[in-house]
Amino acid sequence: MMNGTLSFNAIEEWNIKAFQAIVGDEYVLINKEDRRKYDHDYTEDYHFLPSVVIIPSDVNQISAILKICNEKCFPVTVRGAGTGLSGGALPIYGGVLLSMERFNQILDIDERNFQATVEPGLITQVFQEAVAEKGLFYPPDPASKGSCFIGGNLAENSGGPKAVKYGVTNDYVLNLEVVLADGSIIWTGANVLKNATGLNLTQLLVGSEGTLGVITKAVFRLLPLPKHDILMLAPFRSAAEACEAVSAIFHLGIIPSGLEFMERDALEFAQKYISGIELDIEADIQAHLLIELDGNNLDVMSAEAELIFELLQQYDCGEILFADSQAQKDKLWKLRRSLGEAVKANSIYKEEDTVVKRAELPELLKGVKEIGKRYGFKSVCYGHAGDGNLHVNILKGEMSDEDWNGKLKEGIKEIFELCKKLGGTISGEHGIGLVQKEYMSIMFTERELDLQKAIKNTFDPNGILNPGKIWE
Amino acid sequence: MMNGTLSFNAIEEWNIKAFQAIVGDEYVLINKEDRRKYDHDYTEDYHFLPSVVIIPSDVNQISAILKICNEKCFPVTVRGAGTGLSGGALPIYGGVLLSMERFNQILDIDERNFQATVEPGLITQVFQEAVAEKGLFYPPDPASKGSCFIGGNLAENSGGPKAVKYGVTNDYVLNLEVVLADGSIIWTGANVLKNATGLNLTQLLVGSEGTLGVITKAVFRLLPLPKHDILMLAPFRSAAEACEAVSAIFHLGIIPSGLEFMERDALEFAQKYISGIELDIEADIQAHLLIELDGNNLDVMSAEAELIFELLQQYDCGEILFADSQAQKDKLWKLRRSLGEAVKANSIYKEEDTVVKRAELPELLKGVKEIGKRYGFKSVCYGHAGDGNLHVNILKGEMSDEDWNGKLKEGIKEIFELCKKLGGTISGEHGIGLVQKEYMSIMFTERELDLQKAIKNTFDPNGILNPGKIWE
Repeated sequence: MMNGTLSFNAIEEWNIKAFQAIVGDEYVLINKEDRRKYDHDYTEDYHFLPSVVIIPSDVNQISAILKICNEKCFPVTVRGAGTGLSGGALPIYGGVLLSMERFNQILDIDERNFQATVEPGLITQVFQEAVAEKGLFYPPDPASKGSCFIGGNLAENSGGPKAVKYGVTNDYVLNLEVVLADGSIIWTGANVLKNATGLNLTQLLVGSEGTLGVITKAVFRLLPLPKHDILMLAPFRSAAEACEAVSAIFHLGIIPSGLEFMERDALEFAQKYISGIELDIEADIQAHLLIELDGNNLDVMSAEAELIFELLQQYDCGEILFADSQAQKDKLWKLRRSLGEAVKANSIYKEEDTVVKRAELPELLKGVKEIGKRYGFKSVCYGHAGDGNLHVNILKGEMSDEDWNGKLKEGIKEIFELCKKLGGTISGEHGIGLVQKEYMSIMFTERELDLQKAIKNTFDPNGILNPGKIWE
Repeated sequence: MMNGTLSFNAIEEWNIKAFQAIVGDEYVLINKEDRRKYDHDYTEDYHFLPSVVIIPSDVNQISAILKICNEKCFPVTVRGAGTGLSGGALPIYGGVLLSMERFNQILDIDERNFQATVEPGLITQVFQEAVAEKGLFYPPDPASKGSCFIGGNLAENSGGPKAVKYGVTNDYVLNLEVVLADGSIIWTGANVLKNATGLNLTQLLVGSEGTLGVITKAVFRLLPLPKHDILMLAPFRSAAEACEAVSAIFHLGIIPSGLEFMERDALEFAQKYISGIELDIEADIQAHLLIELDGNNLDVMSAEAELIFELLQQYDCGEILFADSQAQKDKLWKLRRSLGEAVKANSIYKEEDTVVKRAELPELLKGVKEIGKRYGFKSVCYGHAGDGNLHVNILKGEMSDEDWNGKLKEGIKEIFELCKKLGGTISGEHGIGLVQKEYMSIMFTERELDLQKAIKNTFDPNGILNPGKIWE
């Protein structure tokens, strides 16, 4: 029950039999070895073993499973590809792990209406490539796009480099099919570009991290695929100046389709982590901006690139690289996309998904470094600078275990308080999940948190859906 | 109370005194004559007199007022400029009418971050012009933009012609200050472009038609102001072909900044309604498309206009007019914006804010006419064709009062059922309010409606906020 502390019932043999009757024996995993695959996501080094893993293939099965779980008070954690960075897919109370991996179909690409209907277990990049073949464009592209699921993107309201021009996942969702905790199957909206019909449950579900319902179908709007892109990599001798340049680019009246900031260390880790990519980074370079422009008219885009080039000359810049082939563009983006994993391969770490008003980015970076100095941690920062979204990777380095598990929390708290002060918040695109929930009170008053929890309770009175996430 | 039927308490003399103590005597209107100004909006011919009109000027006053109303169980209807078309601002249970007219300030235009913070009583066009002076752009532009308030736009999630390229109100809202029914003051989010921090209450509030809380501040993101626009008016001999052309334009890969459909009658009413605008419409023309392109590069836009021009030649088109001056553009837009009022000045009417998948627009138009034939009503249609959003004005004409108040409902129901069949819904941008609530069950199952009502109940357990709206 949801009153104060959570307590759930244990799943028994005869419940397992009921699940097997619903989805078939082979899709109910009870061996420890099989379940281990589902005990972690990409969040630090957490492991929580679910009591049972169920792998349904249609909405009625999920409805039947949830009816049982709701009645018996079993915790249910829905899992996409497990690429999340805030612990959203971790079954911290054990119980049922509902894996959406068999919901992997594109049900419809409606070229006439620039829409697509997909299942949540579809890999984001597979979706993007399928619509691109028809000249259509689904912009959201988290770094993990080659492996993450659309359902996870919906749960966390994922962004990615293209968000700066095209927005994040929720900007493309028109309608969702959702199974509620009691097993009811609902649709949240309609398949239209404008909708003023009742409360906007579609947007309430997006970003709710599996706490309100299980998304089983999603209808997205699509755009015409831009025909061209230009990619440039600009090295800066001052990281603060790189952040300042971000804002200046927008004041040219140009909206880049990507505007990524990377500290030197991040790029160096990445070059070591993935082979075959060598950038000759001069010794005094502190940071890079990766800037992409897209559009249908190459002349216009070249003129914009020229304007940006001229602007950047006002800063203490190294030589700006223009990618001269698709292969080189792919390499640069691969480098950018691997930063997270590269940093993680290098050290024990914690990642904070900070976001502030864009022009406050230099202030945020300065503050993070200053806080790091005081608490004795090193940080490697990179992210979607055009959105004001900076991923702060805190490295354990020489820090003692005691400090790492103890006073570091105070340091993180200071970083988040700084975010709030700069108009921002504690997660831009990774979600709160397990690892940030203790910091929610920085952003929200007790009344605000109570209201969120009351809405959760309205959807899920027994508190079975992804318990222990978002709120303490 | 919210259980089943609504019942409220009458406001007594000493309650009025309490309100006067909060906002000052002159801002509590009790004379019938003064209250009459607030008894209607732009929705058909409805009048509901509030018991008292309160005109607060700051958030703490609203908090204090709501505390009283919540405790005493007085209905509270929040009113913007009263330009709504679904009866959202009508105090159908009497009680307190909270007019936001004094909340009319732009609190901040943050040029560095392309953001603005405003009060909800600000006129939309005043806001647009203020940011335009700084080279910034707030796109949502409902037909009533010269008089409607931003708060009403938020309540109904208003669109307008530019929605086809730039989206509707909710696409620009980052954060809201809201007073809840119990008087608590909350903020829903943060002032950032990406936010994955807890449930998305911002988007839940937008479009909730004053049923969940009173919005007292809104933070919007802004865009760089496009430098140029091109406007063309294309006459069609077949209204169905005009609708087909809408879809074809998008398949050129072009996203116009306006793509409006107008039936002949609408335009003729408008020419009579506003003086000084004369279009020479050939006798066999059935409909027009008003097409706007915007951008920063006039060459690119001209090339796009040329492509559209060539495309339209494939249809049975009259001579296409390119507006050759700002004055002519203003005139054409004035004509378009006055269609609603012009039709209304001509006949007793009901307006339905239908929306379907864009490519289904010809099917919708055909269906509306066919249903009209069967039920004996004439309709005049116009609207945001690029969004699939067609305003269907049903004229009383020769229809008997009995049919108008009786069997017409069945006809409207058939129109809405057709919308649903075509992937659409019963309101694109006007909201449900009072006049469409009886049709909600076309769009939503009982479980879906119960869930919406449960959320409403979570925000407002005593059901005091805009009672009798959205849900029956």
